[in-house]
Amino acid sequence: MKSSTSLKVRLPALVLVLEIVIIALYAVFVTYDDDSNAKLQNNQTNPMDNALYRDYPYFADVQVMIFIGFGCLLAFFRFYGFSGMVFNFLTATFAIQWAILMQGFFQFYYDGKIHLGVINLLNAEFACAVVLISFGAVLGKTSPVQLLIMALLEILIFAVTEWAVLKYIRINDAGGTILIHLFACYFGLGVSFVLYRPNLNNGHTKEMTSYHSDILSVMGTLFLWIFWPSFNSALTFKGDDQHRAILHTFIGLSSSTITAFALSALFNKRGKITMADIQNVTLAGGVTVGASVDMMISPVAAYVLGVMGCTACFLGYKYMTPFLAKQMRIQDQCGIHNLHGLTGLISSVAGICAILLATEETYGPSMYQIFSHRAPPEGDPKLLELQKLIPGLKAGLGRTARDQALFQLAAVVTTIAASALGGVFTGLIMKLQFLASPSDEDCFDDELFFDVPSDFASIASATQLSDGKLKL
Amino acid sequence: MKSSTSLKVRLPALVLVLEIVIIALYAVFVTYDDDSNAKLQNNQTNPMDNALYRDYPYFADVQVMIFIGFGCLLAFFRFYGFSGMVFNFLTATFAIQWAILMQGFFQFYYDGKIHLGVINLLNAEFACAVVLISFGAVLGKTSPVQLLIMALLEILIFAVTEWAVLKYIRINDAGGTILIHLFACYFGLGVSFVLYRPNLNNGHTKEMTSYHSDILSVMGTLFLWIFWPSFNSALTFKGDDQHRAILHTFIGLSSSTITAFALSALFNKRGKITMADIQNVTLAGGVTVGASVDMMISPVAAYVLGVMGCTACFLGYKYMTPFLAKQMRIQDQCGIHNLHGLTGLISSVAGICAILLATEETYGPSMYQIFSHRAPPEGDPKLLELQKLIPGLKAGLGRTARDQALFQLAAVVTTIAASALGGVFTGLIMKLQFLASPSDEDCFDDELFFDVPSDFASIASATQLSDGKLKL
Amino acid sequence: MKSSTSLKVRLPALVLVLEIVIIALYAVFVTYDDDSNAKLQNNQTNPMDNALYRDYPYFADVQVMIFIGFGCLLAFFRFYGFSGMVFNFLTATFAIQWAILMQGFFQFYYDGKIHLGVINLLNAEFACAVVLISFGAVLGKTSPVQLLIMALLEILIFAVTEWAVLKYIRINDAGGTILIHLFACYFGLGVSFVLYRPNLNNGHTKEMTSYHSDILSVMGTLFLWIFWPSFNSALTFKGDDQHRAILHTFIGLSSSTITAFALSALFNKRGKITMADIQNVTLAGGVTVGASVDMMISPVAAYVLGVMGCTACFLGYKYMTPFLAKQMRIQDQCGIHNLHGLTGLISSVAGICAILLATEETYGPSMYQIFSHRAPPEGDPKLLELQKLIPGLKAGLGRTARDQALFQLAAVVTTIAASALGGVFTGLIMKLQFLASPSDEDCFDDELFFDVPSDFASIASATQLSDGKLKL
Repeated sequence: MKSSTSLKVRLPALVLVLEIVIIALYAVFVTYDDDSNAKLQNNQTNPMDNALYRDYPYFADVQVMIFIGFGCLLAFFRFYGFSGMVFNFLTATFAIQWAILMQGFFQFYYDGKIHLGVINLLNAEFACAVVLISFGAVLGKTSPVQLLIMALLEILIFAVTEWAVLKYIRINDAGGTILIHLFACYFGLGVSFVLYRPNLNNGHTKEMTSYHSDILSVMGTLFLWIFWPSFNSALTFKGDDQHRAILHTFIGLSSSTITAFALSALFNKRGKITMADIQNVTLAGGVTVGASVDMMISPVAAYVLGVMGCTACFLGYKYMTPFLAKQMRIQDQCGIHNLHGLTGLISSVAGICAILLATEETYGPSMYQIFSHRAPPEGDPKLLELQKLIPGLKAGLGRTARDQALFQLAAVVTTIAASALGGVFTGLIMKLQFLASPSDEDCFDDELFFDVPSDFASIASATQLSDGKLKL
Repeated sequence: MKSSTSLKVRLPALVLVLEIVIIALYAVFVTYDDDSNAKLQNNQTNPMDNALYRDYPYFADVQVMIFIGFGCLLAFFRFYGFSGMVFNFLTATFAIQWAILMQGFFQFYYDGKIHLGVINLLNAEFACAVVLISFGAVLGKTSPVQLLIMALLEILIFAVTEWAVLKYIRINDAGGTILIHLFACYFGLGVSFVLYRPNLNNGHTKEMTSYHSDILSVMGTLFLWIFWPSFNSALTFKGDDQHRAILHTFIGLSSSTITAFALSALFNKRGKITMADIQNVTLAGGVTVGASVDMMISPVAAYVLGVMGCTACFLGYKYMTPFLAKQMRIQDQCGIHNLHGLTGLISSVAGICAILLATEETYGPSMYQIFSHRAPPEGDPKLLELQKLIPGLKAGLGRTARDQALFQLAAVVTTIAASALGGVFTGLIMKLQFLASPSDEDCFDDELFFDVPSDFASIASATQLSDGKLKL
Repeated sequence: MKSSTSLKVRLPALVLVLEIVIIALYAVFVTYDDDSNAKLQNNQTNPMDNALYRDYPYFADVQVMIFIGFGCLLAFFRFYGFSGMVFNFLTATFAIQWAILMQGFFQFYYDGKIHLGVINLLNAEFACAVVLISFGAVLGKTSPVQLLIMALLEILIFAVTEWAVLKYIRINDAGGTILIHLFACYFGLGVSFVLYRPNLNNGHTKEMTSYHSDILSVMGTLFLWIFWPSFNSALTFKGDDQHRAILHTFIGLSSSTITAFALSALFNKRGKITMADIQNVTLAGGVTVGASVDMMISPVAAYVLGVMGCTACFLGYKYMTPFLAKQMRIQDQCGIHNLHGLTGLISSVAGICAILLATEETYGPSMYQIFSHRAPPEGDPKLLELQKLIPGLKAGLGRTARDQALFQLAAVVTTIAASALGGVFTGLIMKLQFLASPSDEDCFDDELFFDVPSDFASIASATQLSDGKLKL
């Protein structure tokens, strides 16, 4: 036990500072939004029309994904189950309360206040997912103090990037492929690049799973899988758009799952299935359909995207992750570049194709609702005409399909650049001496930061027993 | 490791063929339904009236049942947790995407296309549940290749049977007792009959649970228990019908649960509770209320049905399963005949009684909505009169209660016959040499199809230790 | 194995008696309510307006909390996982079906019948939560027979107290702080006081966790954490009130979670995190916001309440639980006094402050909806005026803020007195010889009431191995 990783002072001190800041900012800036403010209710208000009933079911589903799904998935190491699950809990909780403020200032701020409703919480969960994905790149090698610092900075940089992309570049990205998955991936790789640990390139004695941790991790995968349609559709337009988002996500996950089983057996030298593939590669379809998830791409396209994303993801794990670690100094612990980066890039391309192929013939007038930046600008007579067909249609920018496609491309490039740089910067901060970073030997070991029960050591000795090396 | 069970070629080849077929059929036949098609939205459409909002919550609940509930429940063997949970994942995923097509052709096909919405997915989940129940009969003794073949054929035979029963016999079966539970049960027994393994009649050294696998399996039971009301009510009429379905399912499960504890202690020779009873018998009430779940049977009837179903199920495990295995060559691994067959038969009888006892005095005019085949036929003046009371009431067949009762009986017989025959046929196909069927010794063992972590062997040696038989 | 704890006769006999009573009472008294009765549906009824759609989502969320959340949380002992999870299942199931009757007589009884809908089930779940919280005080030291007796009596005493407080004292308590948490806590302490086991004051050799039981228990915590907003908001007014309840609960939990991590590290002598803190103290915020959860307390107040509740709860575990055990003969096994008692008291005070500070300026006219007892009484002209602004506003008692505050105080005192006395009385009954109470040595051991799998003993021996004390 090296004293330099004790959390006794560091963690409480950091939490105290963060809480004081948050309490001050909440006190000064955060108030209720129209749907959660008693004063704005009157005899015109139908309580069941409250935005709560549109947003809360999706919020709750995403909660399960974040706390149970990620929590279990990240608990796959044999000696790092407490840390995987519990640091996820801590990081996610802090990330959400911090994102309420950061996104609040950029997206929900008017009349000098951040206006709070479940919709902000839902947005904050997405920001939180960004942090948790990045966490995957450095799992097992970071202290909870470092993780809180990472969440602090990543949420800030994410909120700025999100705001800039949504306000200035203006894109279609219902499933969050660009802003969530690509951002999270390249941010995480940036951090990992700075925190490079050359001694771990040949593995670590504790970098292994156990029978129970593998099962726990698959449960996490299943919870993510089940509620992914809610994730991908939570921020689409209501009605048929959300309906398609759910269908496409389900189909994409479905095809990527059976493909993952096939590839796992095919590339295994004894023709067996590898649990790590089931835990990760099955989910690739959910990311791959993201950028075009609410568009009229047809069910078969979602199916094909799932197969493509899964294949890229699988091959990435096989060939690219080792390459990145050995040649590029990027140790991507959970392979987030495969599950979020490669699939995100495919998804972005698919989104661009779907934009280029969209016609009024397929979409009817609601094309200008989905592709809102293609709607005629304020004052255009076509806008008035369309508003008769689609009440409440907002004025757009009058972009052509090609314009929009180029802006999508610009958003991809901007997001990757901002996140990679942000990640490198954040990694440099995380490297500071007093943040309790574990030594190489102490990585992947719950005992460093937890009081462990008395059978913890036996988890190792049981193995040695089975190997015929009993040590008393 | 016998080479004949390597999945290296078999599984990828089968998946590839299936994916090509599915992609081709999706490309040609599958399009969006009215609620998921952007083109059909216009200024008359209220997005919140989209069918999505009626169907998706139930779809999501059933997803949890299928992937987590069944997945954990089937992971109860000590050395077969990976397989139980992960083959369930594979089989369910394929079954749903295939059922979208098969049921699509029979139920959602018009204008030359299968029209896709969440409602089809919900139906496909029910078809998937059929496969997973049947899977229970052969758990531990089948390869993933065999399971995919089983899903392929069972979904096809199920879709035909479902269509025939719904279109020609026309029954009341809101909870799916007849079409889901009885079909699944007798199909599974048919398969098991063909795949009979005489050497396993006296048990298998690996046919046991562990402390952790038992807990995992109970978690599966709890998830099934919690969301069963959603399952039984997902396809009823909306409003009071669905409301009753939820109440009855909850009450039936509730009474069957406390009964299961009592019977477990009563029949145990040392007066202790057996986990297998808690894992299975507690759920009997959910099946038993199925056929009459939306009718006005009164809450106490649901309670009594739960107690009856539970008792039949418990005694079935105690006496019938061993009898079937030894005398009938039917090795029903998870006892699906008890949990789905016996309870399904009781439920069918209860449904018939509820039909015979139904009066307008109890139901009011909405009797002709619940018992839709008893509604007056097109052209009958009584129909017009009823339609004033119940707007949108559809013309029926003018059946009497007795007529309907006889048709229910016919459906039970037809379903059992079709499923048993279908199961035998499917079993014969599954027996084909190249489907990687495990040898008797390799049953119930994850190592056959999975790369297992290094502590896998110690799960066995730890036991030996505790038995005082340490082998180094 | 002492014969006096065999469940062979005791459990089935008790269940049989209970079932006969319940069946008789259900048969005579329980019928459908307006929303689940087919007869009351007519051409004016819109099926989607059925109360089911307002109540069922919250019911389902609370189901997950009760069966999975509590079930996993209570499975934290190394040798008592079956009992923790499965006795929770039994007790909860019985408690709900019994509460349907007991609360039914007091709250849903008219025209000589208890009228049943999902809303009763939701109320019954809350009553069930009361029993499960009290269960925490005596976990590991009670037989399932004792637990059923406890549920039987506690539900009865709770239903009477709830009725008396709601009907005569009339309070604001949306999150159930007073009626649920305080009642459950002091009832449980009362039972524990009577069942005092002096020999266990210095611990028990089996009173420990394992690596896997700790993870399982955290999963329970996470499910409780995720769905707590549904719990706290399930019985508020719909619309903005429920919206605020969800926001406040989320924020309170969120701040209490990061505080719990900080305190855990701060008070640990080696600066490590203790899993028991994560499993329990993180949840303190959910209770602490309860009494004022639907009021306009402002988001920052919810945050601060979370921090305060968490701190009180943590210090309670550290100092008060040992004190109660050694000085007051109250062995509070799971520390419910910290998580439900101390936080409940803070919450009650906060609720009183929120009531005293409430003004029409902040709430608008809907103040008289939230603080319904402050609404003008029948006949007051101000009532008519308010009813124009808030349609459907019910006449109140014309209480001032101070009046209401005093009534809140009276409710706290009454509830604590009734529950403590009820708990002592129930404890005396539970002490009766034939209820299969475990001996001191047999506490915390699944083997007493369960057929355990063959690796159960090895869970102990594996530990001894790791301690270098191998016994063959």
